[in-house]
Amino acid sequence: MKQKNINNEPTTTQPVPPQATVRRLSIYLRCLSSLEETGVQMVSSHEIASFLELNPAQVRKDLAYFGEFGKRGVGYSVSRLRDHIMEILGLKKKRMVGIIGAGGHLGHALSMYKGFEKRNFKVVALFDKDPQTIGQIAKDIGPIKPMDELTKVVKELGIEMLILTVPADAARSVFDSVVLSGVKAVLNFSPVNLSSTAEVCVHNVDLAVELEYLTFHLNRNQGN
Amino acid sequence: MKQKNINNEPTTTQPVPPQATVRRLSIYLRCLSSLEETGVQMVSSHEIASFLELNPAQVRKDLAYFGEFGKRGVGYSVSRLRDHIMEILGLKKKRMVGIIGAGGHLGHALSMYKGFEKRNFKVVALFDKDPQTIGQIAKDIGPIKPMDELTKVVKELGIEMLILTVPADAARSVFDSVVLSGVKAVLNFSPVNLSSTAEVCVHNVDLAVELEYLTFHLNRNQGN
Repeated sequence: MKQKNINNEPTTTQPVPPQATVRRLSIYLRCLSSLEETGVQMVSSHEIASFLELNPAQVRKDLAYFGEFGKRGVGYSVSRLRDHIMEILGLKKKRMVGIIGAGGHLGHALSMYKGFEKRNFKVVALFDKDPQTIGQIAKDIGPIKPMDELTKVVKELGIEMLILTVPADAARSVFDSVVLSGVKAVLNFSPVNLSSTAEVCVHNVDLAVELEYLTFHLNRNQGN
Repeated sequence: MKQKNINNEPTTTQPVPPQATVRRLSIYLRCLSSLEETGVQMVSSHEIASFLELNPAQVRKDLAYFGEFGKRGVGYSVSRLRDHIMEILGLKKKRMVGIIGAGGHLGHALSMYKGFEKRNFKVVALFDKDPQTIGQIAKDIGPIKPMDELTKVVKELGIEMLILTVPADAARSVFDSVVLSGVKAVLNFSPVNLSSTAEVCVHNVDLAVELEYLTFHLNRNQGN
């Protein structure tokens, strides 16, 4: 199953990894970053697995999707593995991000979220359809813009990703505008599941799912 | 691998399913709820898989962790499967939730998030350590409370889960208070990874991870 990939270049013959693998790569990345900060130079799949409460075989399998870069009995170089994962995830390049529904609570919170910028995502434009909200100045970003400027602003600022925090009843029509804008990636926080199209990759986020994961564990412990 | 479980009761011999399986159960649940709303009565693993862009074998494997309740060639009863997953996830019971760091943007947004209540999570108390924020009235929830009332309020209101939206430098000390409060489940939005303890199950959420999933796809399409 393991593929040699000496030049670390993506090859068209590589299988598309499952979504869960791609998600875990982000988690490995965080783990490697904190190891690097504390001066650790080499790490084994067993160590990564124990930090993240995963099975070591799972860790090795995930990393094998992207070519072989650990040595048996020696483990992985923390900085090289970190660098490699950043490359795989496309995180070496700064990505411009816009938020639609920026006048709402969640849109506002995300426009201030400090976790994005230190991971190379820069929120550069905010949009809303509410005339009361349009024109309000957001710190470090500028005035909230009307939806009919979406395509123009996307082009001008090189926006590659849009975050939707609009109400359920607005989500589909907003998504139509997004498709027309030429943006290829959407992170959707609206309470409506949007499907990816040939042009636009959608990732739906549902914050209640995060709580459901915990109730499963509460339930196991309480037996109720 | 499949287990017969005629009484639909959790048995102690069942293996603990991986985190990704538990996460997918929530997603199956959303899919089944919308099928039920549109009047669909039976569904196959192929159909569920195609709605969710998963492999049918994966769907069958996930559901097999919890016992066998589909019939070959007939599929699953939508309402029974939905009911069963709700039971597995512990979602039949209303869970009381508190938010710590409610004065911040994200805490405020989550206190207003409509997606929780319709999934049986009720935000009943807000906490903050900032004297300027304490006492402010949140609609439908009441005044924001000081941290030193945490243990008392948790007991009085039967809070089972706490959501942390505090800054990185406060996260660990806040978590110590949470452990003392007796709450068993924490959803952590702070930009610090907290580890589960013997008493408290922690689920760390990192919103940048959600964007990273999309860059992977942008990268594959652009080849950059």
